[in-house]
Amino acid sequence: MRRNAIVALAGGIGAARFLQGLVHVLDPRQVCVIGNTGDDAEMHGLHISPDLDTVTYTLAGLANPRTGWGIRRDSFRCLESLKALGAETWFQLGDRDLATHIYRTERLRKGDSLSEVTGKIASVLNLRSAIIPMSDDPVRTRIRTPSGELEFQTYFVKRRTRDRVTGIRFQGAEEARPAPRALEVIAKAKGIILCPSNPFISIGPILAVPGIREALRQRRDSVAAISPIVGGRALKGPAARMMQSQGMPVTPLAVAALYADIAGVFVIDKEDRKHAREIESLNMRPVISNTIMRGLPQKKALARLVARELGMRA
Amino acid sequence: MRRNAIVALAGGIGAARFLQGLVHVLDPRQVCVIGNTGDDAEMHGLHISPDLDTVTYTLAGLANPRTGWGIRRDSFRCLESLKALGAETWFQLGDRDLATHIYRTERLRKGDSLSEVTGKIASVLNLRSAIIPMSDDPVRTRIRTPSGELEFQTYFVKRRTRDRVTGIRFQGAEEARPAPRALEVIAKAKGIILCPSNPFISIGPILAVPGIREALRQRRDSVAAISPIVGGRALKGPAARMMQSQGMPVTPLAVAALYADIAGVFVIDKEDRKHAREIESLNMRPVISNTIMRGLPQKKALARLVARELGMRA
Repeated sequence: MRRNAIVALAGGIGAARFLQGLVHVLDPRQVCVIGNTGDDAEMHGLHISPDLDTVTYTLAGLANPRTGWGIRRDSFRCLESLKALGAETWFQLGDRDLATHIYRTERLRKGDSLSEVTGKIASVLNLRSAIIPMSDDPVRTRIRTPSGELEFQTYFVKRRTRDRVTGIRFQGAEEARPAPRALEVIAKAKGIILCPSNPFISIGPILAVPGIREALRQRRDSVAAISPIVGGRALKGPAARMMQSQGMPVTPLAVAALYADIAGVFVIDKEDRKHAREIESLNMRPVISNTIMRGLPQKKALARLVARELGMRA
Repeated sequence: MRRNAIVALAGGIGAARFLQGLVHVLDPRQVCVIGNTGDDAEMHGLHISPDLDTVTYTLAGLANPRTGWGIRRDSFRCLESLKALGAETWFQLGDRDLATHIYRTERLRKGDSLSEVTGKIASVLNLRSAIIPMSDDPVRTRIRTPSGELEFQTYFVKRRTRDRVTGIRFQGAEEARPAPRALEVIAKAKGIILCPSNPFISIGPILAVPGIREALRQRRDSVAAISPIVGGRALKGPAARMMQSQGMPVTPLAVAALYADIAGVFVIDKEDRKHAREIESLNMRPVISNTIMRGLPQKKALARLVARELGMRA
């Protein structure tokens, strides 16, 4: 890792959009992403790492800009044929994207670690930022709903997050070890960013890996979290509904409370400036910005602000 | 299996072309193919069964008519991306074709047998003929050459059969059991055909599965073999060179001798009528025909002749 590096804890699409700005305002080699693997899944016998791939494809400039996931202009011929064979195909896998999964699955079966494979894929795609999974051990997010416990992708993609969430657990987290470099990059980073991702299902699994939360706590003054809640709504996905079903108010403050032990800085949208005082009461420094990233200029502006708050030249 | 069924022992492209004729002159439900799996291979962690797929795709009308293998009008986007990831991609795998391999690999890993998976694929593709692998156990053809022993596909595809063959062995054959229905269909068939496939690497592996050769021997009078050698040349592939390197004359007679214990009928091309007497000397009944199949009419004519020789109405 470069000196003066920024480490970013990231989920999928929301995080990737922010990171796109970050690698524009910093030398991309200064950016190291620790990615969520709680939403990893096996599909058709292949190991899928949706969040790692979303970040990788986005930073490589390959992502489908319309959906945020997958590869732009990909085709779905293999998936069509799998469907004809009776396979479940609610999880969209493009032909080019499949190569990533086939390659990863083979390498993992041959004994490579997820860190090694993730690094190799990033390097082939000419990524200049580092991307490491939160853990090389399997951690699987499982969603409790009134109709039973669901595998994450079943909840998220197949059932389109329509179930009420009554609980979340990270299967395997207790025995998981942080990926080899994860604790070291956190300890040595100039600053650490919790991307504007879902706190329960994107950042939550990363913090559930033993050692990571404690490592961040040690760096609290250098950790900035960006609120994924703006004006009572989630920037993306089911975060707001998850908060409601847990009886939490849908406010940046409620998210800040989840991070109060690990983040000294909390970035909220201008629309939420009324919460600044409450955030101070959590002993966090509120930073007010425009956090809705419609295009690259907004992504860069937000990234620049956060990087500067962490003492970077950006 | 239907009453009055024909069982055909088949390799890949040459056999598939003949079988295309056979299912036109018989009710396709009367045809049961026992396919070679000696050329099965693992590519990118996926289980490939090239000969089973060639026969399946051909009988399903999906085969690429130009190459004989793969699926017509397939694309190769996934393979291009695998190549970018540094994977070896000399074995061409189309996007649609890959679905077959992904599906097969997952089902095998989950404990299904190759017979079950092969049957399921055939059924999805609306095949009316039965296709069963020679064995559900792994048998792998390995080719000895002056530069060492090669995996079959390395010899056949990567190195384009250019090595001199000094020996062939069927790894795993001794412990392999015939696929569940193989001996039964041979025992009950009205007639059995050894397709015009390479005797060493297409029919050879099937005969190497313990029990199959003996089962054919019991049915010798109802077994017809079609010479893959015409006028001193192989219809396709390296059969002629393999015969030469073993010091065999490149004649139908030499092939007939390989089958003399199991086939009572031997079909040769008109061009080779001079060998008829020698074939009789092996106690085989020579049948003279046009065995070069340029189009469907020739395929049908040859199939009809062979079927009638075996007592079928065709």
